[in-house]
Amino acid sequence: MAYKENYPSALLTEAVEAISSLPGVGRRSALRLALHLLKQPAENVHHFTSAIDHLRDDVRYCRRCRMISDDEICSICSDHTRDQQLICVVESVRDVMSIEATGQYHGVYHVLGGIISPIAGVGPSDLNIKELVERIKVMEVPSSAEVILALSGDVEGETTAFYIYRQIEETGIKVSSLARGLGFGDDLEYADSLTLGRSIVNRQIFKP
Amino acid sequence: MAYKENYPSALLTEAVEAISSLPGVGRRSALRLALHLLKQPAENVHHFTSAIDHLRDDVRYCRRCRMISDDEICSICSDHTRDQQLICVVESVRDVMSIEATGQYHGVYHVLGGIISPIAGVGPSDLNIKELVERIKVMEVPSSAEVILALSGDVEGETTAFYIYRQIEETGIKVSSLARGLGFGDDLEYADSLTLGRSIVNRQIFKP
Repeated sequence: MAYKENYPSALLTEAVEAISSLPGVGRRSALRLALHLLKQPAENVHHFTSAIDHLRDDVRYCRRCRMISDDEICSICSDHTRDQQLICVVESVRDVMSIEATGQYHGVYHVLGGIISPIAGVGPSDLNIKELVERIKVMEVPSSAEVILALSGDVEGETTAFYIYRQIEETGIKVSSLARGLGFGDDLEYADSLTLGRSIVNRQIFKP
Repeated sequence: MAYKENYPSALLTEAVEAISSLPGVGRRSALRLALHLLKQPAENVHHFTSAIDHLRDDVRYCRRCRMISDDEICSICSDHTRDQQLICVVESVRDVMSIEATGQYHGVYHVLGGIISPIAGVGPSDLNIKELVERIKVMEVPSSAEVILALSGDVEGETTAFYIYRQIEETGIKVSSLARGLGFGDDLEYADSLTLGRSIVNRQIFKP
């Protein structure tokens, strides 16, 4: 006889299936992880699973920018040393973390929670776009503020940026997007022609 | 300001720490997985965590061979088409699965649950060695049975094999170990000299 589905126990089969549902985790890795968890003290495993349940069940989002937050208003939105008139619009929580890690940005954020994608069935109403428009409309002088559309350079990103632009242009707010060009240390020879072309058109004054 | 520990929320920090405690999962992957789980429906996440809790809390081990099993006696030990007089001694659950996957073995197993390792603080009493000795002692004619010591070829494996051999030699049971030699398809040029040496000493009659 061989094992049913190659696993000696239904409990193990279920755990391996659950773990291999994670992105980038195959069945072999899932088995390795399941057997690892089996060897840990029960309290460690419960700590592991409850940390995940706790995150999923009790996570809160900032009422203003929709970033993950422990409080009603996140630490960035409530930080008055940051420029509250400069709003960087991003797709995800992760993008906020990436930009924060640069240490180069001192404004605030607005997390869309996704990107417009007809293929994935995501429309504007599924995203926090209305909340962004409201946020701008309650500003005293929107024309002295700026929105940076920090979205990806693919079709979905461009579509989303264009949709948001049309929603907010009447407020008179300044709208910008991320600079595109060669990465630092990139070799001209290996750059794609679209990026290289944009780098030439949007060239900058040389500051030695 | 930067995020405390670079995460926007204590819940997220805890989940990332829990996930990155898994072997081979770094903090970047852990963050990716945590944000993935955050986007899933709550019931999917609960299914994921409860499958793991369920495995850890309710797993059973075969009373005879100590393999993971849903029943008191596992499906291999209760399969009477298998040779119950041929016991393959392995370190772990995973080894049983690997040998089963070969389809070449039709005896039963005994899972030690580890290997003797003074460095890791694992002694003979931490392993299912006493249970193996008992199993052999209750056999009607141990001398007609065989134990295969299918342990790894390193110092710990050799030590464990030797320890077990000394425990069971008085029963008169036949004791064997895995054949060592070049792997199928291995190139002589790249084989280590110990393996190549053993391959020559333990050469087999050519069967074309």
